[in-house]
Amino acid sequence: MDSGALKDTSAGALRAADAGRTVRLAGWVARRRDHGGVVFLDLRDAGGIVQVVVNPEDRPELEDVVHGLRLEYCIAVAGVVRLRPDGTVNPDLPTGEVEVAVERLDVLSPSEPLPFQLDDRVDVDEVKRLQYRYLDLRRPRMAENLRARSRAVRAMRDVMEEQGFLEVETPTLIASTPEGARDMLVPSRLRPGHFYALPQSPQLFKQLLMIGGVERYYQVARCYRDEDLRADRQLEFTQLDFEGSFWGQQDVLDTLEEIAARVTVALRGAEPARPFPRLTWHEAMERYGTDKPDIRFGMQIVDLSPVFSTTGFRAFSAVLDGGGSVRGINAGPLGLARSGLDGLVSRAQELGAKGLVWMVVEDDGSLRSPIAKFLTDEERHGVATALDASAGDTLLIAGDDTPVVLEVLGRLRLDVGRPEGHDELAYLFVVDFPVFERNEDGDLVPLHHPFTAPRDVTEMRERPDEAISKAYDLVLNGSELGSGSVRIHDPAVQSEVFEILGISTEEAERRFGWFLEALRYGTPPHAGFAIGVDRMIAILRDQPNIREVIPFPKTQTGADPLTGSPGRVEEAQLAELGICLRPEVLAAWAEEEPDEGV
Amino acid sequence: MDSGALKDTSAGALRAADAGRTVRLAGWVARRRDHGGVVFLDLRDAGGIVQVVVNPEDRPELEDVVHGLRLEYCIAVAGVVRLRPDGTVNPDLPTGEVEVAVERLDVLSPSEPLPFQLDDRVDVDEVKRLQYRYLDLRRPRMAENLRARSRAVRAMRDVMEEQGFLEVETPTLIASTPEGARDMLVPSRLRPGHFYALPQSPQLFKQLLMIGGVERYYQVARCYRDEDLRADRQLEFTQLDFEGSFWGQQDVLDTLEEIAARVTVALRGAEPARPFPRLTWHEAMERYGTDKPDIRFGMQIVDLSPVFSTTGFRAFSAVLDGGGSVRGINAGPLGLARSGLDGLVSRAQELGAKGLVWMVVEDDGSLRSPIAKFLTDEERHGVATALDASAGDTLLIAGDDTPVVLEVLGRLRLDVGRPEGHDELAYLFVVDFPVFERNEDGDLVPLHHPFTAPRDVTEMRERPDEAISKAYDLVLNGSELGSGSVRIHDPAVQSEVFEILGISTEEAERRFGWFLEALRYGTPPHAGFAIGVDRMIAILRDQPNIREVIPFPKTQTGADPLTGSPGRVEEAQLAELGICLRPEVLAAWAEEEPDEGV
Repeated sequence: MDSGALKDTSAGALRAADAGRTVRLAGWVARRRDHGGVVFLDLRDAGGIVQVVVNPEDRPELEDVVHGLRLEYCIAVAGVVRLRPDGTVNPDLPTGEVEVAVERLDVLSPSEPLPFQLDDRVDVDEVKRLQYRYLDLRRPRMAENLRARSRAVRAMRDVMEEQGFLEVETPTLIASTPEGARDMLVPSRLRPGHFYALPQSPQLFKQLLMIGGVERYYQVARCYRDEDLRADRQLEFTQLDFEGSFWGQQDVLDTLEEIAARVTVALRGAEPARPFPRLTWHEAMERYGTDKPDIRFGMQIVDLSPVFSTTGFRAFSAVLDGGGSVRGINAGPLGLARSGLDGLVSRAQELGAKGLVWMVVEDDGSLRSPIAKFLTDEERHGVATALDASAGDTLLIAGDDTPVVLEVLGRLRLDVGRPEGHDELAYLFVVDFPVFERNEDGDLVPLHHPFTAPRDVTEMRERPDEAISKAYDLVLNGSELGSGSVRIHDPAVQSEVFEILGISTEEAERRFGWFLEALRYGTPPHAGFAIGVDRMIAILRDQPNIREVIPFPKTQTGADPLTGSPGRVEEAQLAELGICLRPEVLAAWAEEEPDEGV
Repeated sequence: MDSGALKDTSAGALRAADAGRTVRLAGWVARRRDHGGVVFLDLRDAGGIVQVVVNPEDRPELEDVVHGLRLEYCIAVAGVVRLRPDGTVNPDLPTGEVEVAVERLDVLSPSEPLPFQLDDRVDVDEVKRLQYRYLDLRRPRMAENLRARSRAVRAMRDVMEEQGFLEVETPTLIASTPEGARDMLVPSRLRPGHFYALPQSPQLFKQLLMIGGVERYYQVARCYRDEDLRADRQLEFTQLDFEGSFWGQQDVLDTLEEIAARVTVALRGAEPARPFPRLTWHEAMERYGTDKPDIRFGMQIVDLSPVFSTTGFRAFSAVLDGGGSVRGINAGPLGLARSGLDGLVSRAQELGAKGLVWMVVEDDGSLRSPIAKFLTDEERHGVATALDASAGDTLLIAGDDTPVVLEVLGRLRLDVGRPEGHDELAYLFVVDFPVFERNEDGDLVPLHHPFTAPRDVTEMRERPDEAISKAYDLVLNGSELGSGSVRIHDPAVQSEVFEILGISTEEAERRFGWFLEALRYGTPPHAGFAIGVDRMIAILRDQPNIREVIPFPKTQTGADPLTGSPGRVEEAQLAELGICLRPEVLAAWAEEEPDEGV
């Protein structure tokens, strides 16, 4: 059977100019109405919806088949396009001026009654949607998500190809990496007891490609991270990964801006404002309390410590004496009652603050606040001036260790200020990240990854806590879309980073020896980036989470309700891999019902 | 550091018209010659090679640095393009009319002495090449393989996009499939003791996309198969996967032909002859003894059974009485001595034949052969006529069970007739494959996969051994590039296939229940294909194996000599996954040296 036989026209393509044409259509019954014997069907295919009309008076042979039709039957029709009668034109539908008078109708596949309505306005439990993802994908919003994703990735590739980047596939069965604990493993059958890891990113391979002389590499790469699934993560995800030799930060940011602009045009039809604003990491932290600020709104954090430098208000003077700071935001005219304001205080405490001071600016310019009476006129005036306060504004002030103050005010700022949807787009580059941060144990760990170049090697060696790196992020509406850096291309610098991280020469040699060796063969200076494709498309499509733009995602516990993965595997198959199940797993199973997933 | 600062021109781009320009170049020292104090360097970058000239008389400050240069140092130079002096133009190099007189030269990274020469003419042990793949990729042939691969995949995508196919990513952490024994497994940490499988192909997910209304899907998909690595297989490989709804075989073959033509143009600069010839599976087996004939040469197998129907030559009459056949090929003017002809007989026996008869056509038209004296004039004449024999031709004849005869003559045909290189290209469609074959145990198994539509359901039910399917292959120069089929879209037919395969209703429900259910919701008729990208590019680039066109392949034992994967993993990490190593693995390790891969 050839397509011409079944279908020669897309349902969504028909227009008034097609009137008189005989067409063959195929798709699904999206809606069905009977009007005095005449049956109107909405026929939906991948290209859209058109109304088809079956009149059993003209076509008695179709009477039985048309009355047997149910929602989501897959059908093929042949008929003549005609203008709809006056008064029945549907302006909401691109095909709304026409309908197809059916001369032939065949059921290609019937459908069982649906487990849920295929209507964007109906709210369906997500597990059920995933279990019937093939039906969920027929819904207009999801179908458009798939199309948008394809367009977006195409736009990314177009920029890469225009700029002379080579698409290169790096392996996905690799050696376990330093961040190994989050590696997903694949047991080897040819070498039982040994394992491959799935890549968290193509980082080292793309650096090898630079050493290999590729100069410009890109890949839309599947990556894997065995995280405790947080709200909006998946075990597997996709990134646009690229890298260039003889390249520096400005080259990467220019390319990124072009990619982001083209993807935005592909999904929104309009260019974002360019050039994208740029903040240093320190500026971002100081003004927004986060390294991924949402700059669609202001409400910047202001340091009020100078205002309170000689304050008699004990809570603040104690903080300042202890080396902390007092900072505030002008949350604007929130109009909250006392209970709402108290809610903000509780929220601040949840976030780790000892407390939060609110002040509401009265019509006469005075400040209403539980602490107003403890402040001098000068202090009240200083706060109002520093926060550019107007009548009706609510000011929120916290005093604590500076990182706590920034974190709390940064989060409160989002709580009270962040727009709900993504109609407006605010791209932002954050640059000059620190090289290192301290983990919970107080050890130095790389803020990006250990292959990131420091701005200055001496600075890194002498003051690692303050050292700045050549790392940069792309942020959109307060979400990190991706990060990148200029890489270390000097093996001595790379060894020094390992040393500062407390990795002994022996350990570095054992874990990264092959990479350190590769660096010794004329490694070019190089830099690159990786964009999280799922997140970028979710934001541009204004979707609540990345699962909406992933065709077949897992649930937050890593399960696929459709196919039942992950499942059990026969003991014999595991034996070939040199592995077995642990006794506690087997003991737990012995108490359970048999698992269907064997 | 921005790129403009280091490099503004590609080395390979310089031409006579650039003479007088000041350029900044960066790349690697590919060659170095000293002529009376003047140093000539071949500077290589991703775009090609240009000669740069350093004259320490003009630039004394460069004397030390230029004499310190070694092969594969990464350098940046600035200088003026000038025409080469008469008599020194190099016509073999695109940049051969010019050279760059160096004014500045910086070493960006030195290189250690190389483990092997980066010269296409030097033969290097493959394990060593893989261990230093980043150097191997600098060799011109390998660099061109990478570029060609990028162009080829781009050409594939272009056709798909032009024809309205949506790029959709399907998951790679999936449920284990029916051919599960070849699945690579990924243990789940969130559900210890349970496993994902890596996909052998996106088959079921692309069918779900058709059910989901996508209509036209494609993906350049990473796939995995845990094979005992044969000569030219990899654990992970790439396929161009596509599927269409309301589509039949002709649509798929038309699209395939367009893809193959465009990829051929991208890699060879010329269109292949179109339309591609087409053979049924039965024709292919009868004429070439294989389902993937190399039709760059004729030498077709001819059934000589009629010639020998009343023969007195016992070996042949016994075969024919036993239901076998006698067939032959005209191997042309091989000009083999007796020992060479005996070698063909031994080879035939190796391949499973009881024997092989050779005949050489003498100048007078008579046949020289060990069996000539047992044959009648009529039989000798019949053989010569059937095989269109001319003086000097060697005829090879085998009598046995027909499958053995076809297999043996098909292989001998390749041995004696197959061209060495891939200069000539012969694409071919093979269609009308059987639905089933018998495995070694005599059980019916699907020849393609169990989702392939039969041509006729009644035929499949009543004569499964002869039943023809709607499956088709694309063959190039005797290699299968890929296969596809019209799929089953009727759940009743799908259940019937499982039943014929001896899979009980309960087992089918347990293993494929979710897929059988999906088929019940208005599944459109659909068909598709998957092309092996690695193999196709290897053939078009005339490479000896697919590892040459895979950036970072594994060895035939699945190892990566560069990174040392697969490696050992800490017990604690395995414990989190609910698995442990088997006692025999641990016992074997206890006797070994400590493994470096921990």
